Parts: sequence; structure tokens; C-alpha cells
Amino acid sequence: MKVRNPRTGLYDYEISPYSFDVLKRKVASMRSAQPKWLSAGIDHRIHVLQKWKNILEENRAELTEVLTLDTGRKLETIAEIDFVFKLIDSSCELARREFQNHHFEYQIEAFVSVGVISTWHFPLVFALIDTIPALLAGSSVIVKPSEKTPRFIKVIEKTLSQVAALAPVLHFVEGAEETGNSLCKLTDLICFKGTELSARKIYALAAENFIPAFVEYEGKGAGIVLEDANLERASSAILWGGVFNAGQTFEGIERVFVHRNIHSQFLSRLVGKTNLLTLAIQNASHGAIGPIISEEHALIINEQLADAIEKGAVIVAGSSKCILQKGGLYCRPTILTNVSMDMKIMQEKNFGPILPVRSFLTENDAISFANSVKTKYAGAVFSTNENSALNLAKKLNCNGVAINDVLLSNVFNGRELAPNFMSTITDSRLGDISIRKFLKQKSILISQENTKNDYWYK
Amino acid sequence: MKVRNPRTGLYDYEISPYSFDVLKRKVASMRSAQPKWLSAGIDHRIHVLQKWKNILEENRAELTEVLTLDTGRKLETIAEIDFVFKLIDSSCELARREFQNHHFEYQIEAFVSVGVISTWHFPLVFALIDTIPALLAGSSVIVKPSEKTPRFIKVIEKTLSQVAALAPVLHFVEGAEETGNSLCKLTDLICFKGTELSARKIYALAAENFIPAFVEYEGKGAGIVLEDANLERASSAILWGGVFNAGQTFEGIERVFVHRNIHSQFLSRLVGKTNLLTLAIQNASHGAIGPIISEEHALIINEQLADAIEKGAVIVAGSSKCILQKGGLYCRPTILTNVSMDMKIMQEKNFGPILPVRSFLTENDAISFANSVKTKYAGAVFSTNENSALNLAKKLNCNGVAINDVLLSNVFNGRELAPNFMSTITDSRLGDISIRKFLKQKSILISQENTKNDYWYK
Repeated sequence: MKVRNPRTGLYDYEISPYSFDVLKRKVASMRSAQPKWLSAGIDHRIHVLQKWKNILEENRAELTEVLTLDTGRKLETIAEIDFVFKLIDSSCELARREFQNHHFEYQIEAFVSVGVISTWHFPLVFALIDTIPALLAGSSVIVKPSEKTPRFIKVIEKTLSQVAALAPVLHFVEGAEETGNSLCKLTDLICFKGTELSARKIYALAAENFIPAFVEYEGKGAGIVLEDANLERASSAILWGGVFNAGQTFEGIERVFVHRNIHSQFLSRLVGKTNLLTLAIQNASHGAIGPIISEEHALIINEQLADAIEKGAVIVAGSSKCILQKGGLYCRPTILTNVSMDMKIMQEKNFGPILPVRSFLTENDAISFANSVKTKYAGAVFSTNENSALNLAKKLNCNGVAINDVLLSNVFNGRELAPNFMSTITDSRLGDISIRKFLKQKSILISQENTKNDYWYK
Repeated sequence: MKVRNPRTGLYDYEISPYSFDVLKRKVASMRSAQPKWLSAGIDHRIHVLQKWKNILEENRAELTEVLTLDTGRKLETIAEIDFVFKLIDSSCELARREFQNHHFEYQIEAFVSVGVISTWHFPLVFALIDTIPALLAGSSVIVKPSEKTPRFIKVIEKTLSQVAALAPVLHFVEGAEETGNSLCKLTDLICFKGTELSARKIYALAAENFIPAFVEYEGKGAGIVLEDANLERASSAILWGGVFNAGQTFEGIERVFVHRNIHSQFLSRLVGKTNLLTLAIQNASHGAIGPIISEEHALIINEQLADAIEKGAVIVAGSSKCILQKGGLYCRPTILTNVSMDMKIMQEKNFGPILPVRSFLTENDAISFANSVKTKYAGAVFSTNENSALNLAKKLNCNGVAINDVLLSNVFNGRELAPNFMSTITDSRLGDISIRKFLKQKSILISQENTKNDYWYK
């Protein structure tokens, strides 16, 4: 199976999806390795993961290189790898706490075989965000990264081969949709992150196999700027939230609602800052905006922009469609005004660096505009009055809201990770539940010899 | 739709399933009532549920009467109603704790509309075991009890009409499979208890509607009696665990494994005690064993007994098939020996008061016999050496194991409720999670004006 390079457009890499039978044998061998992994205890598991972290660190340069090839951008890759090291440490800490909290009466059992189907947006983060907690819980984990960004798998495999205790219970497989579907049939619990459409399919497959599924999908993030907001801060945060990683983020801002009285002041700041951003066409290290991951995604962006323009939207920064440069597809950071709620760009996720800005008069209008999308989303509210921002935040149909910031800061500016800031129908990937969701309690009820037992008849 | 009376066999009651449209309007009206219920706060919700409990208490006689008609037995009904009052109190306590533990940064959101599809085994308990925690969490709840035991619904509705604050957010509907399926399409979260086959269907429907499902289903319980067990206690506990409610329990014992050296001593005690048990044919109040709920269930029991006898099993107490008396179907408490693992009676749940007893020589044999069934089950281990019992318990593929007792004691002898002693692919009905599973966290990230923000470009 050929894989496209997002910077050159060339199909210069190839992956070999496992057949169902090979996958089945692999999962079976991991199942038989899992009891030893579990019974070795949490200290051992933490020790092994820390060792793996060190080996990943030794291979940081190579990992950066392949992830840069996979995604076409370097700055984001550097931040991504940093995030993963933090994730390993914070998960180890959480797991230690979790296993200290056990009651004597309950025995904890880990799901034996966990499947992870991850996405291309941040290939390493999403391959590991469920994997690390599951391993710490004591599960074996088989991971299928996106077929759009598979180049890092070989480097990961090389590092795993150096951690004898981990290799039997952690395995990465190459493959596309079919391989992911197979995992739903072969494992005991499935984790998925991707589009809502795929999330629905994976959940249905899990239901068919009668196993739990933890699925997370995109929301169409919204930023709301109140009349008394610090416009300097609001425009910087919203721009970053909208165009970071070329807009290819789950919690990224894709809609902006601004109070009518400050609309033009805000817009001029936003447009000014947007016009300073450059495309990273020459190489992956320089310029703010990298390539769009695939032709399919560029088409969605082009279609939404065309629909908006046809319905009267005006482009005040950026351009009306993706451009092709040296084989890569790029979308200029783009600001739209004169947008109306019936445009696709106001309703459907596009994963592009595009910010449509609409004004509002009353807070109720802002709320009803923001809540007009079908699923929950990431919110951001800007106001110098924290209380009014908070009151508004509570009325938004969001899984998470940032006040005077965007939720991306939560992840990439070193803040604490808060549970449930993504759209998900199940438990969060973050916080205590991140470990606990891979554990089942087995209750053991001990009766003392002298316990009175009334069995009704005896 | 006509409903059979389990004691007379007459179809003497009728239910009127809602049409999809009526159900849809009902759920819509409950959705609009839910925000008020939630925003009134946990103290209010506890107050209202306690008030309802008092009204249920005032109607205890009538409730006992209709539930006795529904199920054909009185002693179990009395215990069931007691259990429900305890459930309301313990849930209120849990909910108060849950709502005190909130972090300032997180806002808790309840699922707006919860659907509960419950079973006939204990009609009131299973109609309320998810309903009470969901109401306390702040959800509106629509409940569809089993079409086999619908007579108590009218009494519940009468009590609800006396609690003005509860009636808009709690509603019971009559109906069978189709009505349950409709609830999967109309609500935001579904709770189900019933057979594994139905649990799989409900989970698939929930996946189709892309909502969470909490499903619980039967396991084929096993009792293991070690060589050093107190046989007096073991035989009483296992008998009770096997025949309570005529065997119609999810965690009931349906298989007994006894060490070879004490096999005959144990068996003679078990048979002696079994022979003292009488059928409750004259009326619902006297006699240990009430009617089997339906003809369909009696057929399953008969078929399993016939299969066992054909394959060489010997009946040492009880009889080889259900008997028809005054229109009701009864199964004598029945003990089988000479059983082998290939018999249906050793593999498939029958929900009858039947205990096949098989001897073992080594503990490994006992474990592999007990673990030979496909799904998790309720276990019971008897030994005067608590440590060896505990070690064996840990190797059983159970969601819960009782040591020198049966898990039913957990529920009906006033012990603490332990989470996860049932077969379930999702979270437990009991413990902290009972409330928490109806809540979603919405994270709110507050940035201070002086927080350093590195938005990469500005």
C-alpha cells in the first residue's frame, strides 16, 4: 500500500498491512505475554516505560525526522515529542496513585488485549495517549497508526526491540481501515480517535464484538469575544487556536463570534497578525503553516470556501482555495467575514487554518450561534470580566471551554491536562480515568466463619 | 398486549405499548423538564426522592400485592421492596458525596435523557437500580419494565402523581422489545439488564444511535467446595444461592464443584436440605419455590434436564422436568450428579433451581471446570483456610467471588454493595460509579490576565 508524502505529493513510502490471520496470531501471542506483564506489578511497569522513554530520547533526532516526513512540518513535531515525554511521566504518576488506592477486598483486573486506532493529526501523541495508560494498567496493546503517517512506526519498533520487557506486550502494525476493523474483532477493548463518521463505525464494530469502545472525534471549535475583551490577547489566542498545525487539530477554533461594537477593531488585529504568517513551503522548519495532510482534506477545505464565497462571504486575509506548491497542498491562513450560519464553513469541520468571523449583539445570540452545530465542541471566551465569561461558558454545549485562552494551550503550552475537553461519547483520555478505564474490579466478598447467615431455609 | 399470570397461566392483564411518536413526545417533554431538575441542586433531588420513598412506603401493601401477582411469589417481593428502600438511601448518600467532591474548574453535566430497560427477575429492583442514581445525577429517566411483569407500573405511576417535582422527569412506560428499541433511539444513554443475547442487541442499537450503553447480563455461577470446607455452611449457602427466587437470579449458582474426598458427605447434606424445600403452589406466601416466570423459561429448563439425563446425569433430588399445577409452571429444586462438562446444564444459563454437582481432584481441575463457560460469572469458594480460598478465587474468571458465602448474600442479607459483581462489559451499577456514570465533566480552563502565553506567532 503506497503512502503519499504531504510535502512532495509523491507516493514514496509503502506499508504492508497484516492479513487478518497474521494479526490474529500476533494478538494471541500478546495475550499470552500479558499475565506476566500484569503480575510483575506497577513499579516494574513504570520502570520499563521509563526505560523506553530514555531509548526514545536517544532516538529523538530520527523520530523527529520521520515524523516531519509523515506530517510535513517540524515545529509541531518537536512540540509533539515533548508532549509525549510529559505524557509518559504524568501517566506513571497517575498509575502509581491508582494502584495505591486499591481496597483489599477488590482485585483489579486489566483488560488483556487493548486495540488502539489512532489518527494522523499528531501521529505520535495519538498513538500513545491511550497506549501508555493501558500499558500501566497492565494490558497488552496493539496500535494501528493512520495509514497517512506511518513512517514513524519503524523507528518505534526499533526502540521497542531494545526494551525486552515491553516488546511482548506492545506492538505497532501498519494498515488502513480494514486493519482497524480487524482489531475491533480481535481485542477486548478498543480506543479510537478520528472523525465522527469513523468513530460511529468503530463503535458499531465494537458493539458487534460486544467489547467496550472509547471513541473521540472532532468538534467545530468556537471563540467568542465579548465587548470588554483584551483584543490583543483574544486575537493572538484565536489565531493560534485556528491555524496551529495548519488548523489540523480536534479542538482548534473554526468559528469566531465577536461583539458588534468591537468587531472591526478585533478584525483588523486578527487580519494584521494573519498577514504576517508564512507558509512553510521551502522546508519543514521555517514558516508557520505546513502542508495539508492529503488531497482529500484539501478538497474539503476548497469546497467549504467555495460554498461560503458563493453565499456571500468575503475573504479579508488568505485565499479562496488551497494552492499546490512543489507537490504539496497548502492553505493560507484565511479570515472570512460576511458569513452566515447556513454556510458549510459555519457548520462542518474542515481541519483547515480558516477563521470565519461573525458579529453578534446580545450574548444570547452568541450562545445560539456557537451552539448551532450538532456535536459538542471546544470553546473559548474572552472578557476582562471573568465572571461574565464563566457564566457564558457554562451555557455553551462544549466538553471544554477556555477563558481568555484556547484549549490548545492546555496541551501545548504546558498547562495541566483537564479531563474531557474533547468530543467523546465515553470516558475521557485524561485524568484519573485514563488509567482506570483499562481496569475492571473483581469484587471478593469474604464471610467470616462467625458471620450470621440467613439463607431462609437450612 | 396480553400478559400471562405466572401462577395461573391465564392471560389476565393487558398492557398498551406506546407508539414511537407518543414515546418521542414524552421524551421531548421530559427533556424540557430536566434543566430545572438539575439546576435545583442535589439537596433538592435528595429531598424529592426521600419524599417519593415515603409515598412508596405508604403504598407498600399495594406494591407487594401487584409485584406478587407479577412474579407469583411473596417472600422475595418483600425482600425486594426492602432492598429498594435501602437503595434509595445509599444512593442519596453517594450522590451527596459525589457532588461535594467537585473541583471548581470543572462543571458537571448530567445526561439529559436516560433510558432504562429492565428485567422481570426482580421487577422493582431492576427498574430502579439505575434510575435512582440517574435521577440523583440530574438526568430525566424513562423506564420500560419487562412485559412479563408490568402490573406494578400502575402503582408506581400513582405514587409519582403525588410527587409533583419528580413526575416531570421520571416516567414508566409499558411495552416489550420494540418499545425498548425505541428508547435506544430517543434517549442519550441507555441502561439495560437482561440476557446476553438482548444485551448485545441493545448495545448494537446504542452504537447505531451513537450513545453510551451500560449493559448487564447473566453469568453461569459456580460454587467450589474445597476439601477442608465447613460442609454445613457450604451446603446451606450453595442451596440458597442456587434456588433462591426459583433460581431466577443473575448471580445464582448453577454449577457445583466439590473435592472428591468430601463429595458424598457434601452431597448427602445438600440433598437432605433440598428435600425439605416445598413448592409454593397453594399460594404465593408459603413454600420456598415459586413459579417459573414463563412457559418459554420452563422449556429451557426442561430441555437442559433432558439433555443432561440423556448424557448420563442422575437426579438425586427433585425431578426431571417442570410440572404444571393450577396453570403455573414449577421446577422442583433439583440436584444432579454424574454430570459432564459437555452437557448444556454445565454450560448454558437456565435460571432454574437446579444444582449439578461434579467432583474434582486438584484445584487446577476445579478452576478449569469453573472457567469453562464463555462469559464471566459469580463465584463462591468454600474453605476453612481463607488464604487458599482467596488464591483460588483470584484465578476464577469472575466479576465477583464470595468466600464461604454466595454473592446473593451481598444483596439480600444486608451486606455492603460491592461494585462489579455482575457480568457487564461496562461500568458497574454499584458504588461510586453508579452516580458518576450519568455525569460528564466539562472542563473550564481559566487563564489569568498575567499568564504568559506563547502562541508561537503574534
